[in-house]
Amino acid sequence: MAALLRRSRNVLRWNRNVDFAYVSTRSMASKTPVGFIGLGNMGSPMAKNLLKNGYPVIATDVFPETCKELQDLGAQVVVTPAEVAEKADRIITMLPSSPNVIDVYTGSNGILKKVKKGTLLIDSSTIDPTVTKEMAFAAEKMGAVFMDAPVSGGVGAASMAKLTFMVGGVEEEFTAAQELLACMGATVVYCGQVGSGQAAKICNNMLLAIGMIGTAETMNLGIRLGLDPKLLAKILNMSSGRCWSSDTYNPVPGVMEGVPSANNYQGGFGTTLMAKDLGFAQNTATNTKTPIPLGSLAHQLYRVMCSRGYANKDFSSVFQFLREEEGQ
Amino acid sequence: MAALLRRSRNVLRWNRNVDFAYVSTRSMASKTPVGFIGLGNMGSPMAKNLLKNGYPVIATDVFPETCKELQDLGAQVVVTPAEVAEKADRIITMLPSSPNVIDVYTGSNGILKKVKKGTLLIDSSTIDPTVTKEMAFAAEKMGAVFMDAPVSGGVGAASMAKLTFMVGGVEEEFTAAQELLACMGATVVYCGQVGSGQAAKICNNMLLAIGMIGTAETMNLGIRLGLDPKLLAKILNMSSGRCWSSDTYNPVPGVMEGVPSANNYQGGFGTTLMAKDLGFAQNTATNTKTPIPLGSLAHQLYRVMCSRGYANKDFSSVFQFLREEEGQ
Amino acid sequence: MAALLRRSRNVLRWNRNVDFAYVSTRSMASKTPVGFIGLGNMGSPMAKNLLKNGYPVIATDVFPETCKELQDLGAQVVVTPAEVAEKADRIITMLPSSPNVIDVYTGSNGILKKVKKGTLLIDSSTIDPTVTKEMAFAAEKMGAVFMDAPVSGGVGAASMAKLTFMVGGVEEEFTAAQELLACMGATVVYCGQVGSGQAAKICNNMLLAIGMIGTAETMNLGIRLGLDPKLLAKILNMSSGRCWSSDTYNPVPGVMEGVPSANNYQGGFGTTLMAKDLGFAQNTATNTKTPIPLGSLAHQLYRVMCSRGYANKDFSSVFQFLREEEGQ
Amino acid sequence: MAALLRRSRNVLRWNRNVDFAYVSTRSMASKTPVGFIGLGNMGSPMAKNLLKNGYPVIATDVFPETCKELQDLGAQVVVTPAEVAEKADRIITMLPSSPNVIDVYTGSNGILKKVKKGTLLIDSSTIDPTVTKEMAFAAEKMGAVFMDAPVSGGVGAASMAKLTFMVGGVEEEFTAAQELLACMGATVVYCGQVGSGQAAKICNNMLLAIGMIGTAETMNLGIRLGLDPKLLAKILNMSSGRCWSSDTYNPVPGVMEGVPSANNYQGGFGTTLMAKDLGFAQNTATNTKTPIPLGSLAHQLYRVMCSRGYANKDFSSVFQFLREEEGQ
Repeated sequence: MAALLRRSRNVLRWNRNVDFAYVSTRSMASKTPVGFIGLGNMGSPMAKNLLKNGYPVIATDVFPETCKELQDLGAQVVVTPAEVAEKADRIITMLPSSPNVIDVYTGSNGILKKVKKGTLLIDSSTIDPTVTKEMAFAAEKMGAVFMDAPVSGGVGAASMAKLTFMVGGVEEEFTAAQELLACMGATVVYCGQVGSGQAAKICNNMLLAIGMIGTAETMNLGIRLGLDPKLLAKILNMSSGRCWSSDTYNPVPGVMEGVPSANNYQGGFGTTLMAKDLGFAQNTATNTKTPIPLGSLAHQLYRVMCSRGYANKDFSSVFQFLREEEGQ
Repeated sequence: MAALLRRSRNVLRWNRNVDFAYVSTRSMASKTPVGFIGLGNMGSPMAKNLLKNGYPVIATDVFPETCKELQDLGAQVVVTPAEVAEKADRIITMLPSSPNVIDVYTGSNGILKKVKKGTLLIDSSTIDPTVTKEMAFAAEKMGAVFMDAPVSGGVGAASMAKLTFMVGGVEEEFTAAQELLACMGATVVYCGQVGSGQAAKICNNMLLAIGMIGTAETMNLGIRLGLDPKLLAKILNMSSGRCWSSDTYNPVPGVMEGVPSANNYQGGFGTTLMAKDLGFAQNTATNTKTPIPLGSLAHQLYRVMCSRGYANKDFSSVFQFLREEEGQ
Repeated sequence: MAALLRRSRNVLRWNRNVDFAYVSTRSMASKTPVGFIGLGNMGSPMAKNLLKNGYPVIATDVFPETCKELQDLGAQVVVTPAEVAEKADRIITMLPSSPNVIDVYTGSNGILKKVKKGTLLIDSSTIDPTVTKEMAFAAEKMGAVFMDAPVSGGVGAASMAKLTFMVGGVEEEFTAAQELLACMGATVVYCGQVGSGQAAKICNNMLLAIGMIGTAETMNLGIRLGLDPKLLAKILNMSSGRCWSSDTYNPVPGVMEGVPSANNYQGGFGTTLMAKDLGFAQNTATNTKTPIPLGSLAHQLYRVMCSRGYANKDFSSVFQFLREEEGQ
Repeated sequence: MAALLRRSRNVLRWNRNVDFAYVSTRSMASKTPVGFIGLGNMGSPMAKNLLKNGYPVIATDVFPETCKELQDLGAQVVVTPAEVAEKADRIITMLPSSPNVIDVYTGSNGILKKVKKGTLLIDSSTIDPTVTKEMAFAAEKMGAVFMDAPVSGGVGAASMAKLTFMVGGVEEEFTAAQELLACMGATVVYCGQVGSGQAAKICNNMLLAIGMIGTAETMNLGIRLGLDPKLLAKILNMSSGRCWSSDTYNPVPGVMEGVPSANNYQGGFGTTLMAKDLGFAQNTATNTKTPIPLGSLAHQLYRVMCSRGYANKDFSSVFQFLREEEGQ
């Protein structure tokens, strides 16, 4: 931790002195090619939105078949992250977990093997913030600029370019990042030094998990006490109990339409993913000695749910998990 | 519990058959006197708003000095709840706890000693819902109608007639109750059979407590991770972490103005009161075998805070409780 | 609560003055008939042990067929608790829940309808302590002596007269109670005024539940970290992690023989029963404003388990509940 | 994590092939010098016990003054860990935290700079198990053997050579480690591959923390319900609620003598240290996706206690933390 803090201080100092030179070598006015690595459920629609906005895209993925569609739309597909780095001086990565990010950046065919000085690297994956800081440190050693920009919003938001990006990194580079991210999202927020994007996302998702479980408990209790669920939701939503989970994503079937609870908890944001993000919250809280009693318990409940068959259901299925079984 | 359920079923049946006759004996068109029992911080401004709306008020309180001001404003002050019941066929009670309510209704000088048939009794206290049902049962035996109408909103809202009333009781009587409650509040919601008002309030306050502790933990974690508190609040409030405690009543000093956190957690809604309401949530959850893991933990945390010197601070002081001590 | 406290103070005063007269009317030297109400899984072997010790038994149960076996062994079977009270001046009750106890004592054919002055009433049911106090109060009004004596130990211990009785009531009557209880148990502990037996049992079972879940979590974590479960149990049991659940009733299949975990969690102490006892702990803690964070969470976890198919498994099945699903 | 697992598999394979050669170079029959690094409250009495058993000791510490006493007793004091490694082929380290261990082993004057092939390195510190595995990997690269052997027991047990050592590492080396550890402890348990000692210790301390908080809650609840604390402890200790914290280290002042609760929670095992160990439990649980609901909550409670002035009190002071404040 001490080592990491020292490193990031270096990062900032280094950037202050040297960075502007690099920036000047990057072409921002014209639409030069943008690299995109990771064409999964989220990455694919994001890359399409870059194409739609007129950016040439140099793309790759470990699963070549996922590149087909993008190729048909005009993207140039290459084999390795290193090749992307040879052809583009702005690269976006959107990967499922920390080990993938480590491999894509520092692996034997990774970006950093061929990265050009001054290249802007934007990682939109949600990963362990300590890995974020390590990648940033490694990128700087190569003269590149690393920013973390995890997203809020699902596949639908990615398709409609309605994502929210929470961006961490050197403030002078934020405008350059924003230019690209604004093609893929409705909101791009600068959060502070590198890692701050991940920190903001972790914080948001911890509070989201607490609000969701709290809403599920509360709705369940109210129903048991004889209240009509729609009426209860209405009362909460005009009172101080109001939260996103009660007014926008209610976990009780029948209360709202167009949300996972109306569709047997299919789609949405899976319990496994929420458990993963809460694991990051738990780790960062432990490392910073921050007490998070409710966040911790929320984490444990989502962990138990993963063990009990809810891994792939939307995280609002905690309502179902807490309900009495049918027939009892 | 079985007994209580049986009773409330009786209530409903009884009302369906007999109630309308009683209603006709109560004068709703003209502004006949309204009784008001309990002139504390909340009751006093509520009663004043009845006076302002042109209702003659017959008032009493165990502390005679609290009646002075109301008397000067034109209220008739009497000595006992029984006397109120002799002079008014619509009575509102606003008392601090269950034993007070039991005493005011069923005590030796209580309302039910002198209550007239068809009298409308509205209890705005926040109390144990089992007591609510017992009072309703006792009132019905005397031919009176009992409704529970606990409030959301503090002393300020009471003064400005901006309270929210959550009303439980026979639906046919709701209009009669609404006529009076609308003089004292901005919103009057019908929640269902008697006890439903208490149930709705308990549910709201449980979710409120969870949201508040969750917000405090999240803001604290974010600050420890290097995020600016105002920026973090802004990000949460435009994301899925949003809740009333983050966007309207933020617990971190310096993030918002005009909230208790801006004033050393003075005023607002005391930790003791929140712990009391969470006790009701806990009891009703236990009695109905409803799991409320976060609600339960929120209850325990507010209990510990009461023991550690936070009893009289606003419940948003949980942020302070969770913070590292100064100088460490 | 205040009312209850006042009542129990009365109880004590009343007993101090009047009790000894009554005691003298009860024959303690010779083996006069003992009443026994509630011949379920626990009550039946308990009553048999009274017969074995030479006491004539007057028995009843709501299910007449459960009386057959006892009748064959020499007990006199009657139809109602009131009849038992007519024929015996020492009566033991062993019933499944609070409503049964209320009915057996204060119902229209209940004990108190026919109880003789000075009769010793011993309730071995595990029930809500507030009901215990109400029964004691009602019994005293009839001139009888009420003691609570809930048991620790299951059906096996009941058969072998190895139960532990935790006794609450007037100290002067403890010897009289002990005479009978010692026929059915190995240990009879005087805990204090009426209700203290229930209090001691609730406390024990709360700590038991915490220890069991803690042991299950710890064993699971150790196994995940690569430790052999038998070795880990051995290490814990010679260290400060040691508890009854780790050294006598280990929840991990394969670590011990002759415990429910060795038999697919059949038999033992059901999750539903543990959830019920934790509900009493929760209620008494809420009523006395005592923070019990772990006890509360243990309660919630057993509540969730009841909803997820573990209701009838031994409470050590929490280990299974927390494990990753097979095949994941 | 994957990387770590791969490494430790290498460790085992490597050891199986090559290790015995090295072992033969180490003199086990005669009492050759033993290195000891870290002469704090625990390390100092441990090193003395080696001297008492006739082993020449080569010692060092970052605070030279702590070496004085040992020097007077006959130890040879040197300046750096590297010098210890030059002079001894068996070295024990006892350090306060992970960064110290990293520095002592891999720092610029660290053991591994001068370590001889076949040297036996025993780390008795309680640290992050991932650091343990990294140190083991680094040691093996130098041809040395690394074992983790954290202790259970405090300063008193260290002085009286009554510690318990939980040992992880190659099984073939256990006898060599045992020879030395038996001079300083009463029990030396082999737990499995490297890291298993830390795992066992973490598991024990997590269950210990749960048992302690559970005991504190239970005793507090019982006292509130009117039970005598000594009597309640006696009842628990002969029942299924029994645990080390109730029968050996009771947290309630006045129940036992010779424990921290009898001495205003001075001495013993500090709350900060318990919070640290629970942090390791939390991290390993998160990394292995193991749900630990009570362990997690115990962690959070000790975290809050550290913030509220209990950092340096014995961890049994959680009883005091949960009690109502004096004068309320």
